[in-house]
This record gives sequence, C-alpha cells and structure tokens, in this order.
Amino acid sequence: MKFTDQLWKEIEPIYKAILELPFITELTAGILPEEVFLFYLKQDTLYLADFSRALSLAGVRSQGSDHMNSFFRFAADVAVVEGQLHEEYYREYGVAMDAEKSPSCFAYTNFLLSTATTKDNVISIAALLPCFWIYREVGLEIYKQASKHNPYSDWINTYAGEDFNEGVNEAISITNAVAEQEPEYRREQMSDAFVKSTELEWMFWKSAYEQEQWPLREAYNFKG
Amino acid sequence: MKFTDQLWKEIEPIYKAILELPFITELTAGILPEEVFLFYLKQDTLYLADFSRALSLAGVRSQGSDHMNSFFRFAADVAVVEGQLHEEYYREYGVAMDAEKSPSCFAYTNFLLSTATTKDNVISIAALLPCFWIYREVGLEIYKQASKHNPYSDWINTYAGEDFNEGVNEAISITNAVAEQEPEYRREQMSDAFVKSTELEWMFWKSAYEQEQWPLREAYNFKG
Amino acid sequence: MKFTDQLWKEIEPIYKAILELPFITELTAGILPEEVFLFYLKQDTLYLADFSRALSLAGVRSQGSDHMNSFFRFAADVAVVEGQLHEEYYREYGVAMDAEKSPSCFAYTNFLLSTATTKDNVISIAALLPCFWIYREVGLEIYKQASKHNPYSDWINTYAGEDFNEGVNEAISITNAVAEQEPEYRREQMSDAFVKSTELEWMFWKSAYEQEQWPLREAYNFKG
Amino acid sequence: MKFTDQLWKEIEPIYKAILELPFITELTAGILPEEVFLFYLKQDTLYLADFSRALSLAGVRSQGSDHMNSFFRFAADVAVVEGQLHEEYYREYGVAMDAEKSPSCFAYTNFLLSTATTKDNVISIAALLPCFWIYREVGLEIYKQASKHNPYSDWINTYAGEDFNEGVNEAISITNAVAEQEPEYRREQMSDAFVKSTELEWMFWKSAYEQEQWPLREAYNFKG
Repeated sequence: MKFTDQLWKEIEPIYKAILELPFITELTAGILPEEVFLFYLKQDTLYLADFSRALSLAGVRSQGSDHMNSFFRFAADVAVVEGQLHEEYYREYGVAMDAEKSPSCFAYTNFLLSTATTKDNVISIAALLPCFWIYREVGLEIYKQASKHNPYSDWINTYAGEDFNEGVNEAISITNAVAEQEPEYRREQMSDAFVKSTELEWMFWKSAYEQEQWPLREAYNFKG
Repeated sequence: MKFTDQLWKEIEPIYKAILELPFITELTAGILPEEVFLFYLKQDTLYLADFSRALSLAGVRSQGSDHMNSFFRFAADVAVVEGQLHEEYYREYGVAMDAEKSPSCFAYTNFLLSTATTKDNVISIAALLPCFWIYREVGLEIYKQASKHNPYSDWINTYAGEDFNEGVNEAISITNAVAEQEPEYRREQMSDAFVKSTELEWMFWKSAYEQEQWPLREAYNFKG
Repeated sequence: MKFTDQLWKEIEPIYKAILELPFITELTAGILPEEVFLFYLKQDTLYLADFSRALSLAGVRSQGSDHMNSFFRFAADVAVVEGQLHEEYYREYGVAMDAEKSPSCFAYTNFLLSTATTKDNVISIAALLPCFWIYREVGLEIYKQASKHNPYSDWINTYAGEDFNEGVNEAISITNAVAEQEPEYRREQMSDAFVKSTELEWMFWKSAYEQEQWPLREAYNFKG
Repeated sequence: MKFTDQLWKEIEPIYKAILELPFITELTAGILPEEVFLFYLKQDTLYLADFSRALSLAGVRSQGSDHMNSFFRFAADVAVVEGQLHEEYYREYGVAMDAEKSPSCFAYTNFLLSTATTKDNVISIAALLPCFWIYREVGLEIYKQASKHNPYSDWINTYAGEDFNEGVNEAISITNAVAEQEPEYRREQMSDAFVKSTELEWMFWKSAYEQEQWPLREAYNFKG
C-alpha cells in the first residue's frame, strides 16, 4: 500500500464530513447564496497567496532539483492562474477583494507557514497535500452531481479539470517519493500534518458558509 | 508620545475586554475552577514553546548584537524558567502535560511563527510584545485585587514580579528603538501586528475558560 | 536619480573589472578553453539552483502579490529554463553534471540564502539584482563584440536576448519600488548587499577561469 | 560505535592539518603575533554572532523541548559570554572591533545559516558540531603544550575549561540522539555537513594567520 493510500484512509471520515457540509451540497445544487460564495472566494484568494508561499518554501527546502522545480512551478501557477480565476469572478460580480482573513483562513495559512519554519520539509509536503487532493476529490464529486446550469460551473470545472488533476498527481507522487525515504516516526508526523490540514479544509468550508467573524469583534463590535 | 504609547492606546478596548473575562475575574477572586486553570496551564506550556521559538527568530533577524542578545536571552529564559513554573504546577496537581494545542493556541502560535517567516523583523517584534506587556498589566491588576489566600498566587506573583517587569521594559524599549527607524507605513504594520496579538491574547484566555475543543471533533466525535 | 542608478554607480569599477577578466575577454573572442567553460557551466548549474531558492524566498517575503508573483515566476523560470540551456550543453559536450560547489560558488550562494534568513526582504532583493543586471550588461557587451562563429553563441544569445531583458527590467523596477519606501539607512544596507553580490559575481567568473579548488584539498590532496 | 565516533574518524586528517597550522603552533608557543591574534579575534566576534544565530535556528527547528532548550541556551551563552571574553581583549589591547568578515569567515557563517534555511535540522546540527568539538580538542591540545606565560592564556583556558567541556558533551550527545532516528542516507548528509564545517574551521584559522583580504580589493585596491 502506498503511503498516500494510508493517508487517505486516515482522513476518510473527515472527507465524508466535508461532502456533507451545506457549503458543498448547496454549491453542487447550484443554490449556494452568492454572498456565501463571494465570502468563500475572498478567503480563498487570501488563502492561495499564503499557500503559494508555503509551496515555495517546500521548493526551497527540497534537495533534488526535480522536486524543487515542481514546487516552484506550483507556487508560480497558484499565484498567477488562480489569481486570474478569482479576478474574473470579482469582475463578474462587481465586487472588490477587500476582505481580511477569517479565523479559519488565518489558522490554516499560518499553520502551513509555521510548519515550513519549524518542521522538516517532508512534514510540510504532507501538510500541503490536502489542498491539492481534497480539492480534486471534492471537485470531481461536485462535477458528477452538479446541476446543468450551475452558476459556479467555472469554479467546479477548474478543480475537476485535467490541468489541476496533473498537478495533484504530481503532488501525491512527490509525497510518496519522500515518505519512502523516511523512518516510521517521521511518516507518522507527516500523517499528523496531513490530517490536521484536512481538518482545516473542513473548517475553511464550514466557516465560509457561516461567514465567520472574529469573536472579539462580534462580542464588542470593534472594527479592528 | 512614544510609539509604544500609541500601541497601547490602540488596544485599550481589548485590554479592558480582557480584564472583564471570567477567566481573569475568577482567577483574581481565587475561585477559578482548578480544571480550567489546568487547561490554561497546558495550553500555556504549548504556547510558550512556540513563543520562545518566535523570540529566537526575532534575535536571528536582529541586526545589532544588543537586540539579538536580548531576544536570545528571552528565548532561553522563557523556555527554561517558565518550564519550571509549569512543571511545579503539574507536580503539585498530579497531572501530566498531555494536551494538544486548542484552536486559539494554534492560531496564536502559528501567527507568531508565520510572521517571522513572511514579514520584516520589526513586525515580528511588535507581534511578540503583547505577550510581555499584557501579561504584566493583567498580572499587576490581578495582584492588586487578589484575595489573600489565592490558590494561584505563584502564577500571579511571577507576572507581577520584578524579574518579569524588567524583561517587559526591555521588550518595550526594543520596540521603540526599532520603530523609530521605520517609515510610517511600516509602523502601521507593526501596530496591526500588535493589535492582532492582543486580540489573540483575549481569545487565548477566553478559550481556556471555555476549555475550547476543535469543532470537527465536537461535531463528529473524532479522536483526532 | 533612480535608486538603481545610484547602485550602478557604486559598482561601476567592479563592472569594469569584470569586463577585463580573461574569462570574459576569451569568451567574447571565442577562445575560452572548453574545459574552462564547462567548469563555469557546472558551477552555474549549482549556482542557479540556489539562486532560484533565494528568488523564491524573496517572493515568500514580499507583501504585495505583484512582487510575490514576479519572484515566484523568476524562481520557476530560472529553475526550468536555465536548466534546459545547461542540459543541452552537457549533452552537446558529452559530459556529466558531477561537480560540487567551488569556494566562490559556495560563498555567493550561501550569502544569498543567509541574507534571506537574517535580513529584511528589501536587502535580499538588492542582493539578488546583480545576477540579473550584471549578466545582461556583460551579455550585451559580449554580444556586441563577439566573433561571428563563437562556440558559446547560445549562452551569449540567452543573456543578450529579449526574454532575459524583460526579466532584468522587472527586477530593476521592483528594486526601485521597494527602495522608495525605505529610510536612508536601509537603502544603504541594500546598496551594501548589491555591491557584495557584484563582488561575488567578479569572484565567480574569476574562479571559473582558474578552475578554483578548495584549498585544504589542494594542500593535502584530500578527496573530501 | 557511536555516530559521532564515525564523524570524528572522517575528519581526523583535517584535525591533524589544523594542529599543524602556524596559527595553532605559534599560539601554543605564545609567539603568535598580536596583530594576527587580533585579526583572528575580530573575525571570531563576527563568526560567533552568526554562530549564535545558527544555534538559535537549530533550537527553533528542534521538536523536543530538551533539544530546543539546549540550543536556546547555547545561543544565549555564545552571544553573551563569548562577547565578554572578546570585549576584554579589545579593551586590554586598546583596539576597536571594526572589522568586516574575511572571505573565510563569510563562507563559514553563511554556510551555517543557509544550511538552516534549506536543509533538515539534523543536518544543521551536524554542521554546528565542529565549532564545539574541534575547539575543545584543539583547546585541550594547546593547553597541554602551552608555554607557562602564554599571552593568550585566557583564550586557551576558556576552551580547555569545564564549562565549555559540558557544552561540547551536550552538543555531541544531541547529535547522537538525533542521528539514531535517521535513515542512513541522511546520516551521510549529516556527515558531509560535519566534514564541510571542519574544513571551514581549518580555513578560518589559516585565513586568520594570513590576515586574509577580499581578492577584488587586493587586485584593484577598492575600499569596498
């Protein structure tokens, strides 16, 4: 059994929990409120900037030039390509990208970046994988069941598309390649990081549906 | 007006919100449930390990040897001295330090570490200051009003004590020294980081009182 | 006067010293020994891997997404595109890329990477600029004077080409944009870093011509 | 055989080469020119600042709190205690600490810092060990043979003293503890880093005796 097969087994219950989230079911049915989708999109823009930073750091700390190049390409693609997808949405909906990170976005991005600072690179690589892999699986699931005239079809098509699929396969393959060279205790640390990121994926989607605010501001009505 | 005076003005409403938290009022009155205090203490142990990492990184990135040495001493002292205070409590209460980070502890520590990775050092220095300064002010406030036979007097005495006070003054003085050399737009970034850490201090104490759990596990009863 | 005009003035004597190096004059005349060119090329392969790491770190630490994206693209392009140019040479000459870093390559790459670890990002950005700018100027100078049937014309055409030129202009423009927002003392630190990297460029070419070895191994004939 | 015994075997020829350096033999005999010793001392001050940064980064990236605390203490002690020893010498000799890094100091310090940025922490730990271990062994060797009225006896006594000895044993013990948990290929990377740092130790002492200058400035008489 490949290491990544073990990883997926670990997070299957969380993956199922993700598929049950109202954000996902309403996105699939095409009935997700526009306001919720835009909240999500802005958080995703903020997320992807730091995700590309964390990918970049995984490249910096990769020893072989193949893995380094893959991560540098991922970072450049995320930063540029995803930027374009989001830009188009903002134009289409006539809104400005003016958000600050929600607590869940804050937690997830800072986790990825601090992992790159304090843990060995293979653990970062494992922490980065869910954003690829879960997105593809969720994307394909939504794609299969999506209503014909889904207002979010561009988003769905991106994550169910072949370009994204290839990137995901490459990220999975790198994870297996590096895991093979590690002792068992460090593979467990990789697994922990993978599970934590998956949990943060669940929180990210859940928090978008709830249009999550910072609790201090809710409690005291500070503007921050 | 010193830069740090401006900083304090910014966070005064949050500071007041902290003093009103049940964690603080019950700690002062000596009626905070032991279970809550122990939850806090374990999170604080986890927090301080990463706080010392972030202090250390501020030393690594300080240009003058005076500031570098101060941060290296802070890091060594936090790691060792605070470790001892906590150890004694765990022994006294007969409990093991077995916790994993709560969501608020996770958010705060990863914020400090990712700031050290992605922002200029003066911004990290500002982000590190609340954990010194707020603790001293809260500590002194509690000390003034604390009941005579407060079961948490060791904790209170530490943060109201002269040793801690000197460290706080040094951290404030470093913050002013570096802020003086920065342009206005970066002082604003320092201020933003200071405010965010103060908000995370509020969340940290609040979450301890609530014995905060990870929402996915509460929802699905995963053991994680 | 733009900040980068000041920078160039600072390094003009070093730039002239570079143009006088036998490596450059013999490359221009097409009489550089193949063995020397290959020594250079292998060192350059090793250099570029770490140069792309340092570019990537400059992206990670850039605040605006424009600068971040530029550095991530630079890193991806250096890693991939330059890799191809070098690969073709190794194939053409029938040699394997089997070198370890020479002392000068070691000094330059580690300087770029440690600057990214211990100094503010604008200083890294200044340290990264000579490898763009000096290469373009040297490339154009060689291109103008090169013999018709120069065996190193592919190399010369790359650095005198339009694609490379655009990247250099972008790097210069980013340097000016960030320098404008900095106080004078930090602009001086940027200037120091720019001068040091230019000096290391001179050493890099000089050391290639001399096929520089590690002194301990020369002295004791260790294989290392 | 302990991992560190293997490491020492690897570097025995370099260690012998160090003992044969005129810097060491003349220091032992107490006939090292004051000017050379002061050149060394200034470079050592510059070295130790970055050595403490690299120690600090090893602490940041250590997973267990024991190792983290050890490295934070090392960093704080190097920065403060060694600073004092050097200060006293500067006062005694009536000189100012006004040097910039020599090429060998530059190479060594940037190697340690860039290793912390691009390699796994255990490799950094191995790269940091020679500065402890070689200094103790060289210090003890000099101590045994030193002339009675050696003008450099304070320096010699420090590195042959019990305080330093304990630190060295701790660093060796940490290296063994982390090496035990690593696969063979990474232990080889640790060994490579240990050998490289030892080679840089040899260069550092050799370059001090030669009062090494930057080659560009020697060639062109630039003031830099």
